[in-house]
Amino acid sequence: MTLPESRVYLDHSATTPVHPHVVEAMAPYWSECFGNSASSHAFGQAAASALEQARQTAADVLDCRPSEIVFTGSGTEAINLALWGVAWAARQSGRGNHIVTTPVEHHAVGRTVEQLHGLLGFEVTQVPVDGYGRVDPSDVAAAVRPGTVLVSVMVANNEIGTVQRIFRIGRVCRERGVLFHTDAVQAAGRIPLELDEVNVDLLGLSAHKFYGPKGVGLLYVRRGTSFVPPITGGAQERGRRPGTVDVAGAVGLATALRLAEGERVAECARLRPLRDRLIEGVLESIPDSRLTGHPVHRLANHASFAFRGVEGESIVLHLDLEGIAASSGAACADGEPNPSFVLTAMGLSPDWGIGSLRLTLGHNNDAADVARVLEVLPGIVERLRASG
Amino acid sequence: MTLPESRVYLDHSATTPVHPHVVEAMAPYWSECFGNSASSHAFGQAAASALEQARQTAADVLDCRPSEIVFTGSGTEAINLALWGVAWAARQSGRGNHIVTTPVEHHAVGRTVEQLHGLLGFEVTQVPVDGYGRVDPSDVAAAVRPGTVLVSVMVANNEIGTVQRIFRIGRVCRERGVLFHTDAVQAAGRIPLELDEVNVDLLGLSAHKFYGPKGVGLLYVRRGTSFVPPITGGAQERGRRPGTVDVAGAVGLATALRLAEGERVAECARLRPLRDRLIEGVLESIPDSRLTGHPVHRLANHASFAFRGVEGESIVLHLDLEGIAASSGAACADGEPNPSFVLTAMGLSPDWGIGSLRLTLGHNNDAADVARVLEVLPGIVERLRASG
Repeated sequence: MTLPESRVYLDHSATTPVHPHVVEAMAPYWSECFGNSASSHAFGQAAASALEQARQTAADVLDCRPSEIVFTGSGTEAINLALWGVAWAARQSGRGNHIVTTPVEHHAVGRTVEQLHGLLGFEVTQVPVDGYGRVDPSDVAAAVRPGTVLVSVMVANNEIGTVQRIFRIGRVCRERGVLFHTDAVQAAGRIPLELDEVNVDLLGLSAHKFYGPKGVGLLYVRRGTSFVPPITGGAQERGRRPGTVDVAGAVGLATALRLAEGERVAECARLRPLRDRLIEGVLESIPDSRLTGHPVHRLANHASFAFRGVEGESIVLHLDLEGIAASSGAACADGEPNPSFVLTAMGLSPDWGIGSLRLTLGHNNDAADVARVLEVLPGIVERLRASG
Repeated sequence: MTLPESRVYLDHSATTPVHPHVVEAMAPYWSECFGNSASSHAFGQAAASALEQARQTAADVLDCRPSEIVFTGSGTEAINLALWGVAWAARQSGRGNHIVTTPVEHHAVGRTVEQLHGLLGFEVTQVPVDGYGRVDPSDVAAAVRPGTVLVSVMVANNEIGTVQRIFRIGRVCRERGVLFHTDAVQAAGRIPLELDEVNVDLLGLSAHKFYGPKGVGLLYVRRGTSFVPPITGGAQERGRRPGTVDVAGAVGLATALRLAEGERVAECARLRPLRDRLIEGVLESIPDSRLTGHPVHRLANHASFAFRGVEGESIVLHLDLEGIAASSGAACADGEPNPSFVLTAMGLSPDWGIGSLRLTLGHNNDAADVARVLEVLPGIVERLRASG
């Protein structure tokens, strides 16, 4: 089951290994301190106490109140709760029927907004992005109208690494009295997320993107936000996400978040030059190649490219044969038809848009890994072009 | 964090400790085989292979096809997906607008049906239950009408342990062409769940009820069932439950399910006499006490009582001071106003309905635990009555 040491993992935006300290922190909550945190007896209260400690830890990192944190079963679930929760509240109060978003959101946002349109009849405005995949906050301002109930713009794009202007977009929303949701799944541990500084009302995270376990996410809901729970059952998480809370998962998420924030500055400083060497090396050595996403305002660990006339998925398969794990766009989109909807929204033509490659660095990567990619990638692209 | 050995845990319907073999089975999937099962490279495919093996194991136990199994983030989520998925599909096709259920369902069903009524305008018929909390299948048949799209009746009740006539209710639904959902959260490892034998279309499970981890559930969706995913994002789980799959969790659930089914007959045979001794002892030694739920058709590990004129939650607190963990009704309902809605639906008057106590046996319990309860419980009830 263990993969050979010699393999190079360059897909940290798809998922990360759980940090050993995180596994250690979770361990007591499987078989020892196993109570249901909703139970009133000692077993339950021990679990509840661990859960509330985890909530406090997460709140400390995010600079918010513990009561604003909802533990969920995934980042996708957190985002769905945010969008549906606001949509149902708006529907019930008759406050409005319009959502503003972008064409480069992860499917967790994009397809959910489509559902809100298709199933509930919400009207949707997609503000355009520039050639770097970036939204202009003044376009968001222009899209907001009477009846707009929500703006959803991600912090950082999973496929192209571009970081949006969240502070300015948040201010636009606050000034206009519109709720602002941001998908921060790619941002934790890479971008400061101080919720007291930015006008965000709802924010989703996923533990496995920052060396925490899969199967646990976090939804921040600012106090006072109108929210109708789209999933119903018991009274857990103040009724916002029912179901027995995964105490081990919550502890794992909180521990990973604290570790990720603690090392953020140093780790970004370590990875940025590796990323830049990778970008420089690829662009220098491969003709008809380009960086996708923003050259400066991008995640410190994120390199993404387009190669004209080559299928990204073929490059990924050939890299895999060389022992290098990479991705063509989002992992979740694997198997779906090219070209990338993100690159298309940025104005790239289909002959570029099919050739998306993402290399995302993390804990175990070093200069040798970058050198290994630069050693094999030019030949792979060349052979694929020759055979294509 | 570890609770003293001397404590007696009698709340296995609230949650169970994770079996050491289950922890062992999950362990490789945190930091070693950590890939995203949607990734096409070797790390992803190793994870995907473990995930599909877990799906096969679960399908073998449940006697269904692997493609009919959807891993979720909790039992509550599984149930919400089932109900909303069918409701949206019915709404889209204009097939009908009516749901049949019972007044003794867990809140995951009961409150979700309320949401479907309140938010989507579905009409709901609650078929009555008898004094044991049991539904008469002919009442279900009578409640089904043109426009009925779903019947939801649980396998076994969490609060009173009563087992419903699922085979007959399933047949009623099949004959009338109505989808049948059953909440099997309390049933796994206690009741045979052979889906090829019973006419169930959708079924929800929760791993932590049968010595698996919290934070992972299972939804069975029979092939051909019209289903619109209420949560949207990536294409995982054939689009029925998006979000990076928790491979460790899925492996944990499948391992726990196989273990639970393997020991089911022997463990039920071991626990049933303990349960009966507990029931007999309580009813003999405590005046104005009664068994709640069915005397025969009840979960083998489940003893539940009502004590006239005593608050169940007070009994739980006093038992806890004696080192015994018990529950007053459902853990999820803790902190909510009495009397129990389940006991009320069964026709118990409020002076009985406030006095609900549940004692649920499991792996670590033996005759000494039962003796310990019988030693302290009569005095607790007597003192509470005297001080009340």
